[in-house]
Amino acid sequence: VKKIAIIVAGGSGRRMETGTPKQFLLLNNLPVLYHTLNCFTNFQEYIDIVLVLPEAFTEKWKSFIHHFPNHIPHSIVDGGPTRFHSVKSGIKVCMNEHPESIVAIHDGVRPFVSPKVLKEGYSVAKLKGSAIPVIPVKETLREVNGAFSKTVPREKYCLVQTPQFFQLGLIADAYNIPYSETFTDDAGVFEASGRQITLIDGNYENMKITHPVDMLFAEKLLSSGYDF
Amino acid sequence: VKKIAIIVAGGSGRRMETGTPKQFLLLNNLPVLYHTLNCFTNFQEYIDIVLVLPEAFTEKWKSFIHHFPNHIPHSIVDGGPTRFHSVKSGIKVCMNEHPESIVAIHDGVRPFVSPKVLKEGYSVAKLKGSAIPVIPVKETLREVNGAFSKTVPREKYCLVQTPQFFQLGLIADAYNIPYSETFTDDAGVFEASGRQITLIDGNYENMKITHPVDMLFAEKLLSSGYDF
Repeated sequence: VKKIAIIVAGGSGRRMETGTPKQFLLLNNLPVLYHTLNCFTNFQEYIDIVLVLPEAFTEKWKSFIHHFPNHIPHSIVDGGPTRFHSVKSGIKVCMNEHPESIVAIHDGVRPFVSPKVLKEGYSVAKLKGSAIPVIPVKETLREVNGAFSKTVPREKYCLVQTPQFFQLGLIADAYNIPYSETFTDDAGVFEASGRQITLIDGNYENMKITHPVDMLFAEKLLSSGYDF
Repeated sequence: VKKIAIIVAGGSGRRMETGTPKQFLLLNNLPVLYHTLNCFTNFQEYIDIVLVLPEAFTEKWKSFIHHFPNHIPHSIVDGGPTRFHSVKSGIKVCMNEHPESIVAIHDGVRPFVSPKVLKEGYSVAKLKGSAIPVIPVKETLREVNGAFSKTVPREKYCLVQTPQFFQLGLIADAYNIPYSETFTDDAGVFEASGRQITLIDGNYENMKITHPVDMLFAEKLLSSGYDF
């Protein structure tokens, strides 16, 4: 079965208006987003990648492409007002071309997904319909309600990563549901459509670059030759 | 009011039996634990520090001390079979010497607590009895029950860090409670004794060194001159 990837690199929302979006910051002279796409081509040469970008950043991205050390085939789709709408646009394009494939839906600001997770994710989703990578919570976890809070048993919780893997037809169907602000990932949309998800082990290094120090950590990880 | 710190550097439990414990791994040629203690002396020179160590590691630690670039005054107390028992031993020693102080109870493997958190923690605990640093959950959070799991609203949860600050008399009293395996931090013990805790903002950089890549990240953070 064909493997494809949809990389979502920011909506056109509020966050994008201040400074350079994280996915365009440079790591070893190449944008974060390049390293993210590279995880997929390193895993499988000529994998089909659909990159969903805010229209305002398409030109900026194209100006980077010529400097890439290796060719990363991908098509570009305009993003929508939220992550939900952006993913939905990406899915639509994929459904037109490869309706029978397994898709990995991934955040552009996660450049360290491991080959192991990619391998397992595509193969589990092929069998089970979906594969969602999660990692344990290593700190004490508290539930907060106004002025009150209580410790909850952390072993009963997990942190959800991307890429999230799906049989394309199933996730396309799920995305027919009306938009809700409570959707924070694709697994949530999948479940809201009445389906059950399958969890797999994520890789700890697959950080979401959000805080300034995350860029320092990412630089170190790239330059260290760390094997994962 | 006098400020003191109890640094807990591993029980004598199972984890310690394999390889070098994380708190003795070297960062810039000095053990992780040195950097942790240094956060406190950098914040306030001659702060009273009680270091709770497994007895088996006391000699190893003492052999390091002579190589420290600055003097870090501290006393050493033997740890118990669990973190709970180790903290309790530390508290007992402190109660004999400075029963009226404010104590910060901290994990030896968190070498990046910010001066801002130390300042706020001691002053909030003086007023309110306790101060517990927390950071938001940035990833999608799932609650898992056997084969089923569901997304929970992450804005209602937070990740708990150390140091956790208390009026010494209050936390000493709380630690008279019988040991339970469900205690993962001092705030949990404090609450179990019928008291309410006060949350403050932690600092994102204050990572718990647990995974091999955390050592890479810690090295980078130390060598970068990153200001926090």
